[in-house]
Amino acid sequence: MPAAVVPLSELAEGQEADFFALLSEKQELKTRDGKPYFRVAFRDSQREVGLPIWSDSPLATACRNEWVVGEFYKLRAKVQQTNFGPQLEIRKIRLIEKSDAKEGFDPNMCLPMSRFDAEQMFAELVATAKEQIEDAPLRQLVVDIHEDNRALLLTLPAATRNHHAFVSGYLEHVLNVTRSCVHLAEKYAELYPELNPPLDKDVVIAGGMLHDIGKLRELQSTAAGAEYTAAGTLIGHVLQGRDIVREAAAGRAIDPEKLLRLEHVIISHQRLPEWGAPKPPMTPEALIIHYADDLDAKFNMMVAVLAEDKNDGPVTSRRNALGQPVFRGGTL
Amino acid sequence: MPAAVVPLSELAEGQEADFFALLSEKQELKTRDGKPYFRVAFRDSQREVGLPIWSDSPLATACRNEWVVGEFYKLRAKVQQTNFGPQLEIRKIRLIEKSDAKEGFDPNMCLPMSRFDAEQMFAELVATAKEQIEDAPLRQLVVDIHEDNRALLLTLPAATRNHHAFVSGYLEHVLNVTRSCVHLAEKYAELYPELNPPLDKDVVIAGGMLHDIGKLRELQSTAAGAEYTAAGTLIGHVLQGRDIVREAAAGRAIDPEKLLRLEHVIISHQRLPEWGAPKPPMTPEALIIHYADDLDAKFNMMVAVLAEDKNDGPVTSRRNALGQPVFRGGTL
Amino acid sequence: MPAAVVPLSELAEGQEADFFALLSEKQELKTRDGKPYFRVAFRDSQREVGLPIWSDSPLATACRNEWVVGEFYKLRAKVQQTNFGPQLEIRKIRLIEKSDAKEGFDPNMCLPMSRFDAEQMFAELVATAKEQIEDAPLRQLVVDIHEDNRALLLTLPAATRNHHAFVSGYLEHVLNVTRSCVHLAEKYAELYPELNPPLDKDVVIAGGMLHDIGKLRELQSTAAGAEYTAAGTLIGHVLQGRDIVREAAAGRAIDPEKLLRLEHVIISHQRLPEWGAPKPPMTPEALIIHYADDLDAKFNMMVAVLAEDKNDGPVTSRRNALGQPVFRGGTL
Amino acid sequence: MPAAVVPLSELAEGQEADFFALLSEKQELKTRDGKPYFRVAFRDSQREVGLPIWSDSPLATACRNEWVVGEFYKLRAKVQQTNFGPQLEIRKIRLIEKSDAKEGFDPNMCLPMSRFDAEQMFAELVATAKEQIEDAPLRQLVVDIHEDNRALLLTLPAATRNHHAFVSGYLEHVLNVTRSCVHLAEKYAELYPELNPPLDKDVVIAGGMLHDIGKLRELQSTAAGAEYTAAGTLIGHVLQGRDIVREAAAGRAIDPEKLLRLEHVIISHQRLPEWGAPKPPMTPEALIIHYADDLDAKFNMMVAVLAEDKNDGPVTSRRNALGQPVFRGGTL
Amino acid sequence: MPAAVVPLSELAEGQEADFFALLSEKQELKTRDGKPYFRVAFRDSQREVGLPIWSDSPLATACRNEWVVGEFYKLRAKVQQTNFGPQLEIRKIRLIEKSDAKEGFDPNMCLPMSRFDAEQMFAELVATAKEQIEDAPLRQLVVDIHEDNRALLLTLPAATRNHHAFVSGYLEHVLNVTRSCVHLAEKYAELYPELNPPLDKDVVIAGGMLHDIGKLRELQSTAAGAEYTAAGTLIGHVLQGRDIVREAAAGRAIDPEKLLRLEHVIISHQRLPEWGAPKPPMTPEALIIHYADDLDAKFNMMVAVLAEDKNDGPVTSRRNALGQPVFRGGTL
Amino acid sequence: MPAAVVPLSELAEGQEADFFALLSEKQELKTRDGKPYFRVAFRDSQREVGLPIWSDSPLATACRNEWVVGEFYKLRAKVQQTNFGPQLEIRKIRLIEKSDAKEGFDPNMCLPMSRFDAEQMFAELVATAKEQIEDAPLRQLVVDIHEDNRALLLTLPAATRNHHAFVSGYLEHVLNVTRSCVHLAEKYAELYPELNPPLDKDVVIAGGMLHDIGKLRELQSTAAGAEYTAAGTLIGHVLQGRDIVREAAAGRAIDPEKLLRLEHVIISHQRLPEWGAPKPPMTPEALIIHYADDLDAKFNMMVAVLAEDKNDGPVTSRRNALGQPVFRGGTL
Repeated sequence: MPAAVVPLSELAEGQEADFFALLSEKQELKTRDGKPYFRVAFRDSQREVGLPIWSDSPLATACRNEWVVGEFYKLRAKVQQTNFGPQLEIRKIRLIEKSDAKEGFDPNMCLPMSRFDAEQMFAELVATAKEQIEDAPLRQLVVDIHEDNRALLLTLPAATRNHHAFVSGYLEHVLNVTRSCVHLAEKYAELYPELNPPLDKDVVIAGGMLHDIGKLRELQSTAAGAEYTAAGTLIGHVLQGRDIVREAAAGRAIDPEKLLRLEHVIISHQRLPEWGAPKPPMTPEALIIHYADDLDAKFNMMVAVLAEDKNDGPVTSRRNALGQPVFRGGTL
Repeated sequence: MPAAVVPLSELAEGQEADFFALLSEKQELKTRDGKPYFRVAFRDSQREVGLPIWSDSPLATACRNEWVVGEFYKLRAKVQQTNFGPQLEIRKIRLIEKSDAKEGFDPNMCLPMSRFDAEQMFAELVATAKEQIEDAPLRQLVVDIHEDNRALLLTLPAATRNHHAFVSGYLEHVLNVTRSCVHLAEKYAELYPELNPPLDKDVVIAGGMLHDIGKLRELQSTAAGAEYTAAGTLIGHVLQGRDIVREAAAGRAIDPEKLLRLEHVIISHQRLPEWGAPKPPMTPEALIIHYADDLDAKFNMMVAVLAEDKNDGPVTSRRNALGQPVFRGGTL
Repeated sequence: MPAAVVPLSELAEGQEADFFALLSEKQELKTRDGKPYFRVAFRDSQREVGLPIWSDSPLATACRNEWVVGEFYKLRAKVQQTNFGPQLEIRKIRLIEKSDAKEGFDPNMCLPMSRFDAEQMFAELVATAKEQIEDAPLRQLVVDIHEDNRALLLTLPAATRNHHAFVSGYLEHVLNVTRSCVHLAEKYAELYPELNPPLDKDVVIAGGMLHDIGKLRELQSTAAGAEYTAAGTLIGHVLQGRDIVREAAAGRAIDPEKLLRLEHVIISHQRLPEWGAPKPPMTPEALIIHYADDLDAKFNMMVAVLAEDKNDGPVTSRRNALGQPVFRGGTL
Repeated sequence: MPAAVVPLSELAEGQEADFFALLSEKQELKTRDGKPYFRVAFRDSQREVGLPIWSDSPLATACRNEWVVGEFYKLRAKVQQTNFGPQLEIRKIRLIEKSDAKEGFDPNMCLPMSRFDAEQMFAELVATAKEQIEDAPLRQLVVDIHEDNRALLLTLPAATRNHHAFVSGYLEHVLNVTRSCVHLAEKYAELYPELNPPLDKDVVIAGGMLHDIGKLRELQSTAAGAEYTAAGTLIGHVLQGRDIVREAAAGRAIDPEKLLRLEHVIISHQRLPEWGAPKPPMTPEALIIHYADDLDAKFNMMVAVLAEDKNDGPVTSRRNALGQPVFRGGTL
Repeated sequence: MPAAVVPLSELAEGQEADFFALLSEKQELKTRDGKPYFRVAFRDSQREVGLPIWSDSPLATACRNEWVVGEFYKLRAKVQQTNFGPQLEIRKIRLIEKSDAKEGFDPNMCLPMSRFDAEQMFAELVATAKEQIEDAPLRQLVVDIHEDNRALLLTLPAATRNHHAFVSGYLEHVLNVTRSCVHLAEKYAELYPELNPPLDKDVVIAGGMLHDIGKLRELQSTAAGAEYTAAGTLIGHVLQGRDIVREAAAGRAIDPEKLLRLEHVIISHQRLPEWGAPKPPMTPEALIIHYADDLDAKFNMMVAVLAEDKNDGPVTSRRNALGQPVFRGGTL
Repeated sequence: MPAAVVPLSELAEGQEADFFALLSEKQELKTRDGKPYFRVAFRDSQREVGLPIWSDSPLATACRNEWVVGEFYKLRAKVQQTNFGPQLEIRKIRLIEKSDAKEGFDPNMCLPMSRFDAEQMFAELVATAKEQIEDAPLRQLVVDIHEDNRALLLTLPAATRNHHAFVSGYLEHVLNVTRSCVHLAEKYAELYPELNPPLDKDVVIAGGMLHDIGKLRELQSTAAGAEYTAAGTLIGHVLQGRDIVREAAAGRAIDPEKLLRLEHVIISHQRLPEWGAPKPPMTPEALIIHYADDLDAKFNMMVAVLAEDKNDGPVTSRRNALGQPVFRGGTL
């Protein structure tokens, strides 16, 4: 009878079991006195464990010639405490096979991911569009862009690093922004009834939902996380997002001014040229989306800095994605 | 029987009536061929009407020797259309007297003011503190600072120019910010339950209410609007607001970390040093207040730019408080 | 027999003649002692002459009620020297009629324009594409974009102000840039034969020709010169130029990498974010176009500053489009 | 008979002696072939000497379980030259005991410190205030702030790094600045007798003495040098220094304008927002203090860069606190 | 008997007298109703008085055809109060003649000038060099540069505007800076005796004296004040000052390192590239001169802002050479 | 019979031969278990090969006591593949002797160098000056400066790092820039015939040739590549280049305006103060040289980045001399 399949991150010390894992590191190193070895590591979404492969190991040949970073493996192994921290002891190892899906293998299981359910987030987003966007052609445009890219959107991260850089991070971030947009659109429309033309709440909500849609083309998922595509580097998600909207809008009877305001929201949502915006927000709608977006991104970064910083003392180091210390609490 | 007292801004063309007005302009000018005259103007909160006082006018001596910009007058006059636009024709004019208050005179009636009722805004702010701030000493601190400065806060503008630069503009802005803070504190506390220490919602709300409290010392009201005090120029409301909080907190049993977080909110709410913040937001609470505040200020500025710009075409001039064009609508 | 039609800019002092002109200014003014009048001016491409219309003039009613800035008129008038410089004396004036085209009326005749023949510049550009771009689908794309927009391109200015801000200024600038691109592409391809992949000369030339093509959508011609469109302000020619290329490329068999490099040239040609480039030049091709473009624009601005500056002394004022003094010559 | 107590920095090679020292480093390392050891180091104010503690050492258990970085120890040891430079050979080691003070132990003896006598510097500062500040209430305020914080001020460093970052560095820096202020106040008062109001020399001197007084709250001394307090990070010494002055001034009969000028000196002494000043110097007094302060800080940094840089050649590396090379001398 | 020659600035109202004055303004204007006239003004170093010359004035022809701004005139006139302020009534006017020097005419008498005696300042500077610079060749270099340019240096302003922009302003500024340099060189040499190589006090003093010597070539005096020369605009005093030193040093036995340090002082004295320094201060000597220079310039600007600002209230306008408000005094 | 002298870079694996090489690295290291050794490396212009010298090696004493980085050696050795890559096995080694020149030793043979022949580049530059500069005195000045510095110019690199940082890199860069200048001078002179004064083509060409001439004094060659001289660091090549021109021009009959324009070209060629230009380009000539220079430098940097970057994927890392990614090709 085979050992049970247990997630690597749930393996008890000394417990031998089968699990699926991503080869996340393989480096050829040598000790100062010239002894060569490989440093390798395997991970699932919660935990990474490494080990050395010495040249006299029975795994040495396979490691050198066959193991590839970014591939998935099925291992039978246990985790042992050593002087150098926990290490794997591998009994068996082979590449993933198609049939492993039956036992629950899923490539995304080996990457960090959102704490929220992707399907639920997607459903809430689409429901928001359906309920809140009054203009029928614009509503349909937003819904269609989401439905047409459903598969990719479900796992897309929001970035390669900085904020929401994990599986389904895009949905988590965009949903937060959209919820803020619904609230703020309502609030400011009510506050300034004399604004002429009035605040276009449809555009605020559509803009919240689509401001980062260019990530679909800027990023591509790899086993090691998201990477920039060639066009993502040379053109960037700000322009690519507007492309997606324009392409989807072609041939639809969308009010030209609404479309223009929506395009403007996308290209101005980073506000300043040096922050990545070709134009600053020049409409009330664009203003709202910038603030809703930037707060959500920075809040997430600050949470991550607090979770990851190893410093002692009342504040974190300033070497982090925010480039500044974050207060950890205490009064000394 | 005296003519009825009618607000200047409601005077019909050609209608002669009594009204109270502020002398808002008095300049000694001369025509190119040397003919001297005074250009004067009177205003109430909605409308300003000017006229020339020629040297042979029966009002010339009083105008030269007695009329003072910033003083209030009771006039009997009518507004006539001329080639140079509407002008006043003055029948009688005298300084305000104490008894005019009975007929409804109020100095604030001659300055631009908030569209919202100051008492109601004040009441909502204090009620928010009482209902939303859970920590008793902090709650009492916030309430006391407001109650102790009630009279000034009721009419304080938020600035001398830029945003909410009108009577009760401070309350209008701070109330908007506080409402956003209540919403965002709730939202982000729920989104990140694992944040350690947890988001201090009390500090977010107290911070929203007190972030601009230093305006009490930075600005002083004059008949012509708000002006900077000496200390306002040399020290500034960011530091002065923290002073008010520290002075009020002295001798109270406020948790030191809560107080420190609140002080930090105030000094960091403008985010970047070149925007006026001695320190950047280093706590999740400070982050929220910055965004709630900046969006409300910029939104108000954009509304004002749209209302005041005289340009034709699809966008306003870039010569405004935002330093950029604002889109007015249309697709050409 | 009617007076001969003579260009306004060729009218001798005191000569009465018929001419076509643009009403370029109409302001209602008053003297300090209250005498109202209109200041008006008429211009052709080389010269502008003004005059006052006093309220007792036989033209006063027509001026107030009918004359519109930006409209074209046929005048019979003469230019007289006065204490206030040359002024028009108008005998007859009426709006342009269709039949005036027969006598040579052309709206562009009243605006400053390129010293070079638009048709010849256009022909040279298209010929350059045909001769120099080796890749057939890319060549055809470039030619088609030009041919399809031929009418507009013939008169388009390069900008509303700053450089080449006159009729056909677009062609003049783009032709200069393209010629430099041909030279530099040849030069650097030869200098770095080992570059891998090799410099794509086709992209350099196509990029030179299309880098500013978005001006077609950013600007619209008016009688008073070019103005920004709504989309021009909210989106901008950098992005709109890429749109034009992408729309024209749709359905053609263009090599995807060539197209990507061409798009990148367009969006990076202003080099720095604060100069208007969403991305910096990240390809050798984009680097060349930036330098060819910027030199041509700055050279034209410097020529214009030298021609227009009224200062005495060895250098011009620093209040000009370049924001710095320009040396005029001399050693003192 | 016990070995004599000799400072570590005066131990001859091979000499065994007793000394007091700070454990300044303790890291758990392993050789590439897996042999674990601790790298530890001990220091006094002039010298730091390290050694490895191998796992078979008799000190291994104490090192792992008991030794703490930042604690002080009494050691009996000698310094031996090895292939890896000088290393300690430890015979005995124990934590400092109270009675060690009798043999001359003082925690500050293990940190780098000023070359000047702290008591003398403090005395000169207070004497300067007494002799040079003419206004009695202001003079008393300055003296009292110093006397009340005498103990802390005697050892406070001026910073955690950059300039005067050593024991008593605060006094050394502030005394230098104050001396310059006395000179410059005299000089500029004499140069501009017509200045109205006249230069307030009292404020210049008090400002020189108090500009950095907030370091008392921004920094806290630890065995390893100064560290930022929580409030130091979130509020900063610029604001905290003004707090100290305001708190001390409360209830005294200080001229309000003098106090305002003094507060302004403190908050503006770093001149530009991006250098840490909430307001720029807006008084002649503030101007003088900025220059006296900045020159002294930069001069000290340049001296330190020259002393510490290891590069060959005529200039130092640019990787130092100044961010630029410093000239070392020579002409090649 | 001729009227006494009295300085224009000492003329009592209504007193008729002879005086020498500079024609500082002549503009051809017209009233709105077309009446042409000239606005002219005459000044001495303390006062400027204007008048209109109407076309029917007996002076009209001479004014139009002969009077030249920047020329000096002898006038017999009186100053009368008018509705438009004080105006001149001219009886006689002629160009200055050589013989007027006997009656005390001096072109510099009509420009604003230093409050200090130029000869005395020059003498003190040269004496400082002789007494304080120990190295003989360097001392002689400094003395010679001054003696060789004595005539120009006596009247040179320090700038065309901003600081010390008046006759002999150069000497006033350079003397102030040199005095500070003497003090600071002494102070810092004493403070850091271990600096290696030691602070070169000779270079500090020579640098203080020569840091702005390039003004000799950057500026040229005109009747209307200093103007930039062609080379002053294209090269600038920072480089030109180093040229003067290098040219004077050629063929002298000056220690090469001393000369290099002196050249570096000159080119780095404005500290940052955007403030005009090709290199930042990289020597202790250069650091001292930057601070001594910048404080003196900014102090002078602040004094001038306080003297010239017309605003009411506790602070000046921010529209001045400093670009910021200056505190005028008071606490409200 | 001695082994043949074969360049190190042409040695086959296992082939034993004599060769000349530079000792480019010598570091004293120790393994983690304390075994000391030296890491050394030898290089010629194309290849660098290292080896360890263990303490029991027969070369150990010579290595420790005699070998000096930057010296040249004649070796007899072979290159062997090892687990740590190719390593040298040294049979004999001695310092270079004079007589080695006969066998073809040349110090520059051990440094990276231009792909172009230095003599030919030099000849083309001088020929360009002779043929293209019409003004005889200016032409002679340019030729003389080159001929007088011929020996140094033949090998000078253009920089210590960034662009053209290799032997003869100066000539390669300057020749490229000069060729562009010839082309652009011709082009813009023809385009703007009405420019007044006309474009001075002589100055453009002379400026192209001399813009970096100050590198002669800023840099000095060492065995390890170029280093900054003391004056290079404290003054810089921009000013030093102008010195060279001024010194060479002294006593020649060069038109002063031509010389001034040429000096201005040199000091403005880096355009912005923060890029190293004391003055921005204020002449048409200076404008052309800036663009020709900057394009050539950036193009070379981009080529180097593409050649050296080790990253996978469509773009290079952003950690390079350009500080941004460069596109490598591909569309994914």
